[in-house]
Amino acid sequence: MSKLLSQTIEMIKPLDEGAMAQARARQDTLTKPSGSLGRLEELSIQLAGIQAKPLPSIKQKVIITMAGDHGVVAEKVGNWPQEVTAQMVYNFLGGRAGINVIARQVGARVIVVDMGVATELKPHPQLLSRKINPGTRNIAQGPARTEEQATKAIESGIEIATAEIDKGLDILGTGDMGIGNTTPSAAICVVMAGKSAEEATGRGTGIADKQLAHKIEIVKRAIEVNHPDSEKPLDVLAKVGGFEIAGLAGVMLAAAAHRIPVVIDGFISGAAALIATAISPVLKDYLIAAHVSAESGHRHLLKHLGLKPLLDLDMRLGEGTGAALGIFLAETAAKVLAEMATFAEAGVSEEEKAGS
Amino acid sequence: MSKLLSQTIEMIKPLDEGAMAQARARQDTLTKPSGSLGRLEELSIQLAGIQAKPLPSIKQKVIITMAGDHGVVAEKVGNWPQEVTAQMVYNFLGGRAGINVIARQVGARVIVVDMGVATELKPHPQLLSRKINPGTRNIAQGPARTEEQATKAIESGIEIATAEIDKGLDILGTGDMGIGNTTPSAAICVVMAGKSAEEATGRGTGIADKQLAHKIEIVKRAIEVNHPDSEKPLDVLAKVGGFEIAGLAGVMLAAAAHRIPVVIDGFISGAAALIATAISPVLKDYLIAAHVSAESGHRHLLKHLGLKPLLDLDMRLGEGTGAALGIFLAETAAKVLAEMATFAEAGVSEEEKAGS
Repeated sequence: MSKLLSQTIEMIKPLDEGAMAQARARQDTLTKPSGSLGRLEELSIQLAGIQAKPLPSIKQKVIITMAGDHGVVAEKVGNWPQEVTAQMVYNFLGGRAGINVIARQVGARVIVVDMGVATELKPHPQLLSRKINPGTRNIAQGPARTEEQATKAIESGIEIATAEIDKGLDILGTGDMGIGNTTPSAAICVVMAGKSAEEATGRGTGIADKQLAHKIEIVKRAIEVNHPDSEKPLDVLAKVGGFEIAGLAGVMLAAAAHRIPVVIDGFISGAAALIATAISPVLKDYLIAAHVSAESGHRHLLKHLGLKPLLDLDMRLGEGTGAALGIFLAETAAKVLAEMATFAEAGVSEEEKAGS
Repeated sequence: MSKLLSQTIEMIKPLDEGAMAQARARQDTLTKPSGSLGRLEELSIQLAGIQAKPLPSIKQKVIITMAGDHGVVAEKVGNWPQEVTAQMVYNFLGGRAGINVIARQVGARVIVVDMGVATELKPHPQLLSRKINPGTRNIAQGPARTEEQATKAIESGIEIATAEIDKGLDILGTGDMGIGNTTPSAAICVVMAGKSAEEATGRGTGIADKQLAHKIEIVKRAIEVNHPDSEKPLDVLAKVGGFEIAGLAGVMLAAAAHRIPVVIDGFISGAAALIATAISPVLKDYLIAAHVSAESGHRHLLKHLGLKPLLDLDMRLGEGTGAALGIFLAETAAKVLAEMATFAEAGVSEEEKAGS
């Protein structure tokens, strides 16, 4: 394991129980029946624990959207041409993709990273280039790449997240772009979450039954051919993962190391979370599951991680679109905790004891 | 039926199918797999139909929070003292209740209305006073008020909403405050949605089993004593409703009459929607169910209305807090439709035919 990676892992500490207790106690003094803001109250307490502040604050918001290509598209696991990955990167940079619209709406900046797009991308002031390889190799025939390359991709994620954190950051969202990337994510889900290929594999951008059956076979073949070792997350990542998935795992590790909450997006971010939490189990408490994707494996994946999604809006776009909505809810939760009046401040009577 | 009410009902027209078809067609040209933004896509199409614009726009946002008291608190259906209704009105006016915090977060103004608070409220520049009676009478012993008073409360709702619409308004959220108001709402749910008292009655601010059983008996008694006629929504409203519930029904009618989307909050707003949609069935298409409340009857109520909630965050505060979150999602949905690039604009390749 690299020095940067092991140092980062060492920095990840449990949530701050004291801050959480203070936040919980304050929630019960606010002018509302106790618990009546439901998941927003829970979220505010988690944020307190993550930021180690009784009154967590969410102002600076960033979504890191990582792009990579996948050699497994040669197996016809989907119907979108591979060049779409690069075209969508340009769309992100132009500010008119789904993630740009929703990120603007929640006041988050979008950081676009080329982690391994097959196409040579034109330089752009807003594009971070961390390309290690122009896409992975076909995982149905052999390993996606070397373990060294996978580690390097995680390190890139750590570096990029750390650079943003150094500028001042209160919350981070994850996003992905990569034609074919539900296939490696399904393979990771099979290996790391112990799901069957049938449970883990979904319709991606919308394939029909026959093609889904074929995709399931490809997921099975990727695992048979590569023998990824579920006890070794870096081995799994190297053999059946993707560059953007590795990068996102690095982003999560860096965020947790710096006590920054990470709002994870859909199935691909979930696959990255399976890797990241296997590398550092305590990291799980730093994750907020924005939504459950319409991609069928995501529900199983979140359950395995023990994460309860905030939203269920039948979304399956990726890019960080779900994460952006989750960031809005996190900011709202923090504001409720900080800005609502207490019973004493507002001169509001409290609940009487039942039967009194 | 009063002239204002019948005129308002006449103005309510079906959604604009042409605008919806244009919005649907545009969604399929945007740079994402078709349908991949799930409920946000559906919502944008509904908004197009409501506003009769292919590109609906949500800029001016208002939440109308109506307060009223309930004579049925004499039956000890809950444990909060009645004076809390008035205290919370002052908290709203002070800007530090839950609804104020969440409304600020989504950029919505909050309009606070005294529809029938038991306490005499001090005048305040931001408080609209439409008090008809200082609370309803005890519905376990007789009718809440006269049908004339109920109609007057609906008219107040129509007038208040119309005044806001005249200032320029793109979306409206509903909210309520009233100690004891889950009891009349449950009675309305029993009569108008054909649910049992057991299904319709929940724990309100958090009562225990024994008190819940008592509350269910009170709901049954209110119906036995008053014989509300489910075919006559004004009769039901007069006999077992509340002033804020009637006012919110008026708000919904006025909004639909002016093609303004209405985001409904929790159980009390849902009870108002049962009345409003019985008065004008076509109004239903103008409603957006923000969330399903933790108040147990709400799920049944929404199902009866044929409305699918956007959120399930275990909230049960009322005030319009859920509606505020729903307004955020509606605005996001409209922006996605308006601001995302099409495949042609962004030069992104489209999906290939399966098997080609």
